[in-house]
Amino acid sequence: MAYDRELVERVLAEARDTVLDEIRRLLERNRLTGYGPLYDLVEDYPFREGKGLRPAILLSSAQAAGGRVDEAQGSAAALELYHNAFLVHDDVEDGSDYRRGRITMLRAHGAAVAVNVGDATNVLAMQLLLHNVERIGVHKSLLVLREVERMARESVEGQAIELQWIADRRFDLADDDYVRMAHKKTCWYTVIAPLRIGTLCGHPAGVGFPLEADLLPLVELGHLAGIAFQVADDLLNLEADQGLYGKEIGGDLWEGKRTVMLIHFLRTAREATRRRAIKIVETPREDKEPEDVAWLFQAMQEAGSLAYGHTFAQEYAQRALEVDARPLPYFGDGDNRRFLREMLSYVVERVR
Amino acid sequence: MAYDRELVERVLAEARDTVLDEIRRLLERNRLTGYGPLYDLVEDYPFREGKGLRPAILLSSAQAAGGRVDEAQGSAAALELYHNAFLVHDDVEDGSDYRRGRITMLRAHGAAVAVNVGDATNVLAMQLLLHNVERIGVHKSLLVLREVERMARESVEGQAIELQWIADRRFDLADDDYVRMAHKKTCWYTVIAPLRIGTLCGHPAGVGFPLEADLLPLVELGHLAGIAFQVADDLLNLEADQGLYGKEIGGDLWEGKRTVMLIHFLRTAREATRRRAIKIVETPREDKEPEDVAWLFQAMQEAGSLAYGHTFAQEYAQRALEVDARPLPYFGDGDNRRFLREMLSYVVERVR
Repeated sequence: MAYDRELVERVLAEARDTVLDEIRRLLERNRLTGYGPLYDLVEDYPFREGKGLRPAILLSSAQAAGGRVDEAQGSAAALELYHNAFLVHDDVEDGSDYRRGRITMLRAHGAAVAVNVGDATNVLAMQLLLHNVERIGVHKSLLVLREVERMARESVEGQAIELQWIADRRFDLADDDYVRMAHKKTCWYTVIAPLRIGTLCGHPAGVGFPLEADLLPLVELGHLAGIAFQVADDLLNLEADQGLYGKEIGGDLWEGKRTVMLIHFLRTAREATRRRAIKIVETPREDKEPEDVAWLFQAMQEAGSLAYGHTFAQEYAQRALEVDARPLPYFGDGDNRRFLREMLSYVVERVR
Repeated sequence: MAYDRELVERVLAEARDTVLDEIRRLLERNRLTGYGPLYDLVEDYPFREGKGLRPAILLSSAQAAGGRVDEAQGSAAALELYHNAFLVHDDVEDGSDYRRGRITMLRAHGAAVAVNVGDATNVLAMQLLLHNVERIGVHKSLLVLREVERMARESVEGQAIELQWIADRRFDLADDDYVRMAHKKTCWYTVIAPLRIGTLCGHPAGVGFPLEADLLPLVELGHLAGIAFQVADDLLNLEADQGLYGKEIGGDLWEGKRTVMLIHFLRTAREATRRRAIKIVETPREDKEPEDVAWLFQAMQEAGSLAYGHTFAQEYAQRALEVDARPLPYFGDGDNRRFLREMLSYVVERVR
């Protein structure tokens, strides 16, 4: 899947700048009127270099739908803040040591501060969404709020499903189980909501907009792209982990996360191997032995589980491209429309 | 301060029922369309017996302002959910064992589940606030959302101030420091926002409503009542702790919380006593010795710190009654208006 790398990287970089500008102004306003040190902490995660995929999808959708950047800027920044709040809390939930190459909020300031900073980040996101009223009017602002509520609800449900697997010590999972969980946990946050919210913000709204039926292809597209993205991200974590970073990064094998690759391995391994693997996965992170994790990685590789994951991600990306090839409602042509197509290849190509 | 106990208890009980009805329906809707087990967990805290003070203030304000219960019911339930989300996270932040006489979400299901359940509770609160549109229209719904954003922002700032005191190991606090922190952490959540949101929901809105200037007395009233409430609550915790429950309840002395009483004690104690007290307060909860905590409680009692707290709470309640005695905008007469007055005495009287 060849793709226009220059276009993708330019749009991602622009989106990051747009959103960070907005977040910087927001923090400045709140520092002036509120308790400053809190906002210094809130600033940490968003300004760690991320891909900026979510804001890029949102801003491109808005422009492809005929809107201006400034009509979607607040929503894009809000989404990025919700995402960062989620990351801060996720690091507490997983007991993670590192995030984007630096020590987590949890390890730097403890669980109490991290939970509160995550909550504060959510509050600022809501503040931005309420400012939308002055930018895109009451009607669209309320529609965006509804989308955000849906997105956040899907995410906590996805998170709950995954936590329940851990509590129930479940390993007999099928790919479909994984896809249902990731649909909620990843797809809504990462692709579906950015596509829908961008379209809402940018569309020259008229009578009857939006028709839920017209937004449905965006759910399908976002679902397929989101699964491709998540599996590719898990592959990147797995492979980069062993090669470049070693234990310090705290990859998914260390955290016992159920990925498509691990599920494949457990499904296909012989009983004794399966038992050994489960024992390693279930060992608390701090008690794990590097040799055990190395063995598991090696065994997964030899069993073809990583290759399986690559094919899995490729297939979802391919299906996403097919949905994308159909005429999508609301979207015109141009670079922004092209970005939405090109990034579908980007998300799986970057792990090759 | 005599007060109409029958009235206060009746209004509190009615408000609890109204709000729990609403929350029950909300959970039922979300179980039908979403991942059910998550909502079983969300249900836990709200249905533990609380006082119901916040919803009672909100619903009474709405009715005193001329509105109906059903116009404020969704907002009252949302506020109760925000409060419960805050409690679930607060228990994680403080590492608490018990809440309302039962084991905390943290201890029953671990930090990961507790953080996620708190987040999910926030999402449901937002869902209710968006349903407001059908009940009280777009304009009022947006105003309520703004109030909630403000309230949540004040709370995370108050929490941040308190956590910073712990991080900085600060004990040289004046009453004013405490009042500034509690204004943000308690007063907005517990009294100011319920008063303002109730008024917004219930008022027969017309041109020019609300005037921020007209809502200001509610901030003053809520500030004074909120401080009285918090100090009284801390006294209840301290005294009930030692008398009835012992260590299991996990009172403020065990958690090292800076209260007006502890601040008074540290301010007035001789140097050696002060040093010993600080050492006890700073010892992690699980390493604390019951005899040390008992000594500290005894010493605080002998130093008059508990009596100081009682007087402090009484004075704030008295000042609240004086503000309340002035004609407050928007409020008519009747039982609901009377409740707002009577509960000012109730919050300090229940600790006598």
